[in-house]
Amino acid sequence: MSFSTPVRDMLFTLYHSAGFSTVERTGAYEDLSEELVTAIYEELGKFCDNAVAPHNRESDQNGARLENGVVRTPEGFKDAYKQYVEGGWNALAFPPEYGGQGLPQTMAVSVLDALNASCMSFAIGTGLTTGAVKAILASGTDEQKKLYLEKMVSGEWTGSMNLTEPQAGSDLSAIRTKAEPVGDGRYKISGQKIFITYGDHDLADNVIHLVLARLPDAPEGTAGISMFIVPKNHVADDGSLGARNDVQCIKLEEKMGLHGSPTCVMAFGENGGCYGTLLGEENKGLKNMFVMMNAARLDVGVQGVGIAERAYQRALAYAQDRKQGREPGVKSGDMISIIEHADVRRMLFQMKALVEAGRAICYANGVAYDLARRAPDDDDRRKAKALEELLTPISKGWCTDRANEVASIGVQIHGGMGYIEETGAAQHMRDARIAAIYEGTNGIQAMDLVGRKLQGDGGAAARDFVENVKEQAIIAKAAKRDDLHMIGERLEDAAFALEKSTIWLLEAAPKNQEDVLAGSSAYLRQFGNVAGGYYLSRGALVAALMAAAGENVAYSESKIAVTSFYAEVFLTEAAGLCSAVCAGAARIPAIDPELMTA
Amino acid sequence: MSFSTPVRDMLFTLYHSAGFSTVERTGAYEDLSEELVTAIYEELGKFCDNAVAPHNRESDQNGARLENGVVRTPEGFKDAYKQYVEGGWNALAFPPEYGGQGLPQTMAVSVLDALNASCMSFAIGTGLTTGAVKAILASGTDEQKKLYLEKMVSGEWTGSMNLTEPQAGSDLSAIRTKAEPVGDGRYKISGQKIFITYGDHDLADNVIHLVLARLPDAPEGTAGISMFIVPKNHVADDGSLGARNDVQCIKLEEKMGLHGSPTCVMAFGENGGCYGTLLGEENKGLKNMFVMMNAARLDVGVQGVGIAERAYQRALAYAQDRKQGREPGVKSGDMISIIEHADVRRMLFQMKALVEAGRAICYANGVAYDLARRAPDDDDRRKAKALEELLTPISKGWCTDRANEVASIGVQIHGGMGYIEETGAAQHMRDARIAAIYEGTNGIQAMDLVGRKLQGDGGAAARDFVENVKEQAIIAKAAKRDDLHMIGERLEDAAFALEKSTIWLLEAAPKNQEDVLAGSSAYLRQFGNVAGGYYLSRGALVAALMAAAGENVAYSESKIAVTSFYAEVFLTEAAGLCSAVCAGAARIPAIDPELMTA
Repeated sequence: MSFSTPVRDMLFTLYHSAGFSTVERTGAYEDLSEELVTAIYEELGKFCDNAVAPHNRESDQNGARLENGVVRTPEGFKDAYKQYVEGGWNALAFPPEYGGQGLPQTMAVSVLDALNASCMSFAIGTGLTTGAVKAILASGTDEQKKLYLEKMVSGEWTGSMNLTEPQAGSDLSAIRTKAEPVGDGRYKISGQKIFITYGDHDLADNVIHLVLARLPDAPEGTAGISMFIVPKNHVADDGSLGARNDVQCIKLEEKMGLHGSPTCVMAFGENGGCYGTLLGEENKGLKNMFVMMNAARLDVGVQGVGIAERAYQRALAYAQDRKQGREPGVKSGDMISIIEHADVRRMLFQMKALVEAGRAICYANGVAYDLARRAPDDDDRRKAKALEELLTPISKGWCTDRANEVASIGVQIHGGMGYIEETGAAQHMRDARIAAIYEGTNGIQAMDLVGRKLQGDGGAAARDFVENVKEQAIIAKAAKRDDLHMIGERLEDAAFALEKSTIWLLEAAPKNQEDVLAGSSAYLRQFGNVAGGYYLSRGALVAALMAAAGENVAYSESKIAVTSFYAEVFLTEAAGLCSAVCAGAARIPAIDPELMTA
Repeated sequence: MSFSTPVRDMLFTLYHSAGFSTVERTGAYEDLSEELVTAIYEELGKFCDNAVAPHNRESDQNGARLENGVVRTPEGFKDAYKQYVEGGWNALAFPPEYGGQGLPQTMAVSVLDALNASCMSFAIGTGLTTGAVKAILASGTDEQKKLYLEKMVSGEWTGSMNLTEPQAGSDLSAIRTKAEPVGDGRYKISGQKIFITYGDHDLADNVIHLVLARLPDAPEGTAGISMFIVPKNHVADDGSLGARNDVQCIKLEEKMGLHGSPTCVMAFGENGGCYGTLLGEENKGLKNMFVMMNAARLDVGVQGVGIAERAYQRALAYAQDRKQGREPGVKSGDMISIIEHADVRRMLFQMKALVEAGRAICYANGVAYDLARRAPDDDDRRKAKALEELLTPISKGWCTDRANEVASIGVQIHGGMGYIEETGAAQHMRDARIAAIYEGTNGIQAMDLVGRKLQGDGGAAARDFVENVKEQAIIAKAAKRDDLHMIGERLEDAAFALEKSTIWLLEAAPKNQEDVLAGSSAYLRQFGNVAGGYYLSRGALVAALMAAAGENVAYSESKIAVTSFYAEVFLTEAAGLCSAVCAGAARIPAIDPELMTA
């Protein structure tokens, strides 16, 4: 059950697929260098392997518990969290003025990659804190920043996002939680929230809840939602903890997986004594929420990568150990490891190729995020911003869909043992399943992709992306290696297919949005397949140069092998997805339930 | 959580997709008519809806338990099983001389469809009994048949299959359980078996174990395995129950799902007193096993269809009830049911199309099974046998892979609620997961397809199948409806793609089996996609004729709509799978774990 953070792969992806050097070259990050990044990742690997990963199995079996109103996290989480804070992992990408290390966001994405692979139910808590920090950084008053940020940046206090109510899941317009001004700048909060990840726990001294609620006489719908900072324990001006606020976890949900992560029903103001302060402007709560949410979407995407990595490592180890059968045509003698069987190798390549493609997409998304904020040139920042926005639903939607597939293949490689909980493969599959759902279901990601991201700029960013892929395909085709040439050909076909779908959607858009929406998920899948192939092929070209120069030859060749497999299986799938994208709403007529259950 | 057996769909599929009339027309089944079949299916529906389905949720929550050496099934199972036996459901397709009703096997496949949809952990037990009956029918002595068959045909006693040992899963050559003749025709059995479904339980008075074991001095490997009948309770010549045999369940596995089904570790002869009789010839145990196994593979395939149906019904009901969001462009007013959202409808169509395609494949497989045994003409029997053999790995492999997808989409439609166990969607996904693994993993099904089934007859059956699909495509293309014409075009493209893959595999076979095996799973998927489209399109053509004649117009149109969706999404996928099939072993080079975990 041992796990090893894939430091070498993370560095390879960061530099050779995702182009992290462009972030270094902005000059915006003092002292940033490959040596420093390597040292940090190696440290990260040690922390994850030794302090976090060992708790993964146990956290599933015993899970978080609600005891007399107090949420207890699984054995070992407290110590792991202490090390997480002390190691500065929470503060990595935050501004130095609040105690952060001011490193690029892409590196924080890597931290989540490793942390989620180590123990997803532990890692998920940290993402809520960093999301809350971003919202307070973006919209907080000086006083709010002073009160909360330093301890949240370090991780000494955690954050939570309180959006969902039973009647308001994907559609937040239906939120009913109330906030009434009490006259001293504070607001009295009352209402219930559900699905609140790490809404309460015993890892930190305080939890800073960000809560969506309605002011009295607020407009209907999303235009009447405001965001409030509601601390679990009140904070005095000197930063010391005061009285307990009237907010508590009243129930933990029984979930399919992620048992170590407390998913809370939170009651605000049950005794009429819950107070908070407004974050940002009145009725502009959704704007703040999207600050948190957008970052969170990339975080969830890389969570998919992490859990897929873990499932892959587990399956690879099992496939080496488990002996069954013989080579084709051989009838007797010792059994061979199942890794020798072609179909098992096929499954392992499938897992590995999807993990690497997902990692490349998420890291590239991180690079775009950093360049969008720190590139010296306006035009570079604008282009990076467009790419960041385009890639976000793909990171979230594609990487988590693929994580489900990877985790399920992991179970399959284990055969009957995969269905037995003891093995651990089933846990990865159960844990992974949530990532395609929260922070906006993948259906909502697909709507975002074909809506705001594609139609928002008339398709400019998508077309730019396709052009880059075509150029990359030409470069790969020109390479003097059959495998790279093949990759280039597959990439070119896939790029043309993506272009065809893109044009179809843009032409359908003014006529009928239902046609666009009907193909949205297929388009996201197609786009993700192409993006994965694009970033992997960039890495493969570097690998070929390294191999030709005699550098890390075996490792470099393994990168090309994985990319070749990906091209043959997933880029060709992309080419075949056009008809699913372009079938239109005619293929999904209104459903008469009477006819559709017979 | 209510469930309704899809009787109308089952009958439509049986007659219009799977061509059940050809079974009726053999004349081998007295009194068999559409009226009779309809009456039986309606009765089946009542039994499943009222006696079985209500126990599904509870059986997951509380599960089977081992208490003081006795296995207790979940609340309600005993009563449901009593009704199952009394209703004659177990005896449906068995010979009248042992108390069976002598109806076609295809109808027994339908019974499993409905039963698995109602409660998979209940249904799975029945399949073991019918498998054991088939093995005893095929190889038992008159005495064995007299002792066991009548009570097993009725279901009064159940059967179990004892194959797996820790070191012998997919590869049975490693079996170590021993059988020593004691001189009076009996054998002393000793050893442990794992993963024994319903190895012990409280539903019946006796369990008749079929056990694979080695005789002293048996040859190594699979050529030295014999099969034994080992009753839980000894049976006297007059059929009365005697002393308890030395066989017991010593542990239940903790599984990802199917909690209501006891998965036993069985100890034979721990106290030196376990006796059984040889079934069939010495060292020919695997032959018997394949009699059970082949029938069981179709049973598991339709189990996938059943659980997918259940997941679909659950998701459809939720999508009608759950209100979130508004139509595109609408900003205020009441929220609409999520079934109105294009992407949710897309998911429901995806589920429904895969359920119907799977059902059609399994029922067609059943029809081929029946014709192979009961068609009056030798040549018809031979052809049907070839089709039965070809379809079996597809029923098992494709339908269960697709069941996992369908159940996962069901969770997705539920959004966050899907991850909460209370909703039930997660249970369907956890339950479904095993079907792709047992009775030969789907990787083994793929090996069987490209090996024995494809290469065994030089590709004759596969080519015949492709020709039939092409003919069907021409008929559909000629229809004077745009949707049928489109279906025909997609079917034709898919048929040519399948032909291309088939030829490639046949040409690669003599050169390198690794090339063949590397593409085997993709070929199974491609074949299943084409087969599903083929059988659905047969139904769609009948539906079009019915609609044109003013018969059940709305229902008939719904069948065409589902087939159209299938064609656009899954037949086009088939066309895109050629490169994955034909990539060869070069794309899955040997894995150096050191390089592949970094």
